[in-house]
Amino acid sequence: MQRYFLEETHQDGDQVRLTDVIYHHWITVLRAETGATAEFVDETAQLFHGELSQVTADEATVTLTAVPTPKVELPVHVTIACGLPKQEKAEWITQKATELGVDRIIFFGGDWSVAKWQGNKVDKKLKRLTKIAHGAAEQSHRLRRPIVQYAANLAAVLQEPVDVRLMAYEESAKQGEQSALNQQLQALTPGQRLLTIFGPEGGISPAEVAAAQAAQTTLVGLGPRILRTETAPLYLLSAVSMVLELQQPR
Amino acid sequence: MQRYFLEETHQDGDQVRLTDVIYHHWITVLRAETGATAEFVDETAQLFHGELSQVTADEATVTLTAVPTPKVELPVHVTIACGLPKQEKAEWITQKATELGVDRIIFFGGDWSVAKWQGNKVDKKLKRLTKIAHGAAEQSHRLRRPIVQYAANLAAVLQEPVDVRLMAYEESAKQGEQSALNQQLQALTPGQRLLTIFGPEGGISPAEVAAAQAAQTTLVGLGPRILRTETAPLYLLSAVSMVLELQQPR
Repeated sequence: MQRYFLEETHQDGDQVRLTDVIYHHWITVLRAETGATAEFVDETAQLFHGELSQVTADEATVTLTAVPTPKVELPVHVTIACGLPKQEKAEWITQKATELGVDRIIFFGGDWSVAKWQGNKVDKKLKRLTKIAHGAAEQSHRLRRPIVQYAANLAAVLQEPVDVRLMAYEESAKQGEQSALNQQLQALTPGQRLLTIFGPEGGISPAEVAAAQAAQTTLVGLGPRILRTETAPLYLLSAVSMVLELQQPR
Repeated sequence: MQRYFLEETHQDGDQVRLTDVIYHHWITVLRAETGATAEFVDETAQLFHGELSQVTADEATVTLTAVPTPKVELPVHVTIACGLPKQEKAEWITQKATELGVDRIIFFGGDWSVAKWQGNKVDKKLKRLTKIAHGAAEQSHRLRRPIVQYAANLAAVLQEPVDVRLMAYEESAKQGEQSALNQQLQALTPGQRLLTIFGPEGGISPAEVAAAQAAQTTLVGLGPRILRTETAPLYLLSAVSMVLELQQPR
């Protein structure tokens, strides 16, 4: 069933006028008619079934019925901080990471990032990536929509308050380091905030590794193969799900 | 360091004339000169350092030195069978699954596949996907290059001899099934062959689910979120690595 996000808090029985964006997609594109149903998620992540009760040429109203909200969010809040990759890859990371349960994505200017986001283009790029995240959240039936942000450099990322901070580091994998990621994930408790840092195509600079370590960041390998910048975050998110959802049934 | 695959078996000290493909990439594109070095993997997955000992306008020779071969392959042989997705997605799955350690990729005509591979185009498509797999294997420093194949339907896939057969099934996830994947992966022993089946964009038909179950296939959920057809295989491969590489250090 189609799923849409609402910007406010709602109650069982509420009559809600659809936003222009939802109207356009559901009524204009999908041609929904009176009596059609879709799922709606309010600002508090409460799930509702919504029935289209009134449609005119330019507005529509749904009647909401509160339903039990399934557990579809990762038990921890995962932020991925990705060294600025090329545009197409940023879009891919955003879409796939959303499907895999990410809470927040920060693209940062890495020392070795080839891509640069010029000051006046940051807002435009974030707007586009946010739209991709919202669409992916609807498609994958999430209850939360990830936030997409920009940071000028790693130093700004390291100031984010979190509970556990990891950095995916290729050299760790090359040196045969294999257990740090598992140890860190096993130790997480529900509701904690995990930040994981990934380098851009060019990798992480020695200065960035040193700065991260000085900020209590654990370097972790993601297995013995070399993963591209857009693949590593997907490995991490899948691993979080495997360890915290499939190996520790709630 | 650049890595290339050789089609034959080699010994320490061998002088090898480069194929046209390697010549083009290493000499013409990367402008390697006499004395340059690269890594070479022979047909038996033995690793060599190769030094460019002679270059002319149309041929080049490397001298191979055998070096210890690192363990970079998954401890089990993983085949993913993917219901035919759209072309661009098939390319993406091939590239990403190769990075994540897949051994073999079978694209099959699913009951609900929207994409079709017409008979006379199959070879051309497989050739292109094989090239993508080979490139990704070099980039991710694999020792084996995945094989890409086509099967007309799921019945043909189910005839493949394997040790464990799984099917990613969205309904399993919706029904709260959370432990089957972990149980199946934990039970694998090194060298076993794991086949996992994924539906196309349209999903797996009831007839396909029944046929798979009749062929001793275990239905598994990949967590509570709905993953797109190109994301699910990446989750599976990451989970295999997490369980068999990072949680069971060799």
